[in-house]
Amino acid sequence: MPPEVRIVEVGPRDGLQNEATLMPTADKIVLIDRLSATGLRSIEATSFVSPKWVPQLADAAEVYAGIDRQPGIAYPVLVPNETGYDRARSVGVEEIAVFTAASEAFNRRNINAGIEESLQRFAPVMARARADGVRVRGYVSTVLGCPYQGAVPVADVVRVARSLHDMGCYEVSLGDTIGVGTPAAARAMLRAVASEVPMPALAVHFHDTYGQALANLLACLEDGVSVIDAAVSGAGGCPYARGASGNVATEDVVYMLHGMGVRTGVDLDRLAATGNWLAGRLGRRTQSKVGEALAARG
Amino acid sequence: MPPEVRIVEVGPRDGLQNEATLMPTADKIVLIDRLSATGLRSIEATSFVSPKWVPQLADAAEVYAGIDRQPGIAYPVLVPNETGYDRARSVGVEEIAVFTAASEAFNRRNINAGIEESLQRFAPVMARARADGVRVRGYVSTVLGCPYQGAVPVADVVRVARSLHDMGCYEVSLGDTIGVGTPAAARAMLRAVASEVPMPALAVHFHDTYGQALANLLACLEDGVSVIDAAVSGAGGCPYARGASGNVATEDVVYMLHGMGVRTGVDLDRLAATGNWLAGRLGRRTQSKVGEALAARG
Repeated sequence: MPPEVRIVEVGPRDGLQNEATLMPTADKIVLIDRLSATGLRSIEATSFVSPKWVPQLADAAEVYAGIDRQPGIAYPVLVPNETGYDRARSVGVEEIAVFTAASEAFNRRNINAGIEESLQRFAPVMARARADGVRVRGYVSTVLGCPYQGAVPVADVVRVARSLHDMGCYEVSLGDTIGVGTPAAARAMLRAVASEVPMPALAVHFHDTYGQALANLLACLEDGVSVIDAAVSGAGGCPYARGASGNVATEDVVYMLHGMGVRTGVDLDRLAATGNWLAGRLGRRTQSKVGEALAARG
Repeated sequence: MPPEVRIVEVGPRDGLQNEATLMPTADKIVLIDRLSATGLRSIEATSFVSPKWVPQLADAAEVYAGIDRQPGIAYPVLVPNETGYDRARSVGVEEIAVFTAASEAFNRRNINAGIEESLQRFAPVMARARADGVRVRGYVSTVLGCPYQGAVPVADVVRVARSLHDMGCYEVSLGDTIGVGTPAAARAMLRAVASEVPMPALAVHFHDTYGQALANLLACLEDGVSVIDAAVSGAGGCPYARGASGNVATEDVVYMLHGMGVRTGVDLDRLAATGNWLAGRLGRRTQSKVGEALAARG
């Protein structure tokens, strides 16, 4: 078990982009500024994917320009291509995240390209980021299952993760996009990837669609992973199962880590208050059990 | 990891006794009969605690007499004292469960007796059960925390669990009544108890108030526990934090176990359909993420 874990808060991006409710720009800025005051060191702020695909985050430039960026906190943004990179850089973005799936079928269905081609499409973005001193994080999605092809070979996950690392991503986040994985599979996948990419350069990103996220995280922590993606209040849903749960709630992750004596630097009460505030703005119950329990206890 | 796990379904008892909605007797009977058709081998049917304390289960005798008991399935019922034992036996109960807390403060507040005295109160019930050939299961509550005294010494948990086993309980279920525990604490508690009571005679019973139940179960499974209490649809709440979650959902436990290749004998689709039906009868959303995801996928 690592003594310390860095949480990458993805609520403002992966959470909000999958919420039915369109959040006003001002609220997004408040959300990120509140998160900045919790002790989190990485907050994924928004996405510069075309508004045509992600209308929820069409205000990416306004949000990024509006937040009160704090020293010592990274605010990565999702960037799909050079157009997105230009938009992001025009408002001063210093860290980006690129993404691809480990599933051939998922890539073909979403971007009409196989895995190899999807990686090649990032090459110019990676080159420009390197030249500009912009840090790049990489996401691999569908690492434990795909809504189109079902099973995803571990070898494909390893290959994609290694390619992103080789291309210059300082960290590669392994995502169970549809939340179907269970602990033994999560651990086996992580071990396989860690044989090719150093463990300190790996993060895990589990959706809680089937309630397995914390158990999967525990299995991966026992294998030494020390970076965890999570979304405050469990924001977001599953585009492949409307009504199902989305990201694991940051509050629940932090509660587990602190309970095991693992440091995160995060103030759980402030985080839970922010998550409960967010749920209120989205007009629904929080998906964080910790947020729910703390609110119930008053 | 054990190759096989026995699930003790506690929804009809621990779930329903903590639901705000009073379920009609006929629905309770349907619930248990549906559960009997899922492959579960232990279904806690009801409680013969005084209706003054648990009005939700005042119809215990009618429910027990009304269900279609299947060979090979145990239908234990909660029994607090000889009066409850008499009521239970009068309708043909063949297995009972007794209960006490590992917390001095909890016992004093709830039954106005310390741990030792609470154990002694069960002695006559145990003696009669032995004479009648009635199997007895024991519950230890507040094993990872108490709403009144906070921390609960592991030594107290060990002492209570051992006493119940010594008194003749064939199985002792260790319950995190308020769901505050995290995996390292759950594992340390289980290990301590298992040094005094054989692991095959132990079960774990985790509430999901803080979202930790599946992670705690995983930690305990890795230490060899092979009996897990759970409630279909995550029925029940937390009497110490109104609005918070209750029992871990059986569907989510079974999903995790099957995903890791651990046999349960349970048909997950039938179980999830039963959980979603139950949530409908209770007029609320299911607390099972698996139930939610399967319903969303249709």
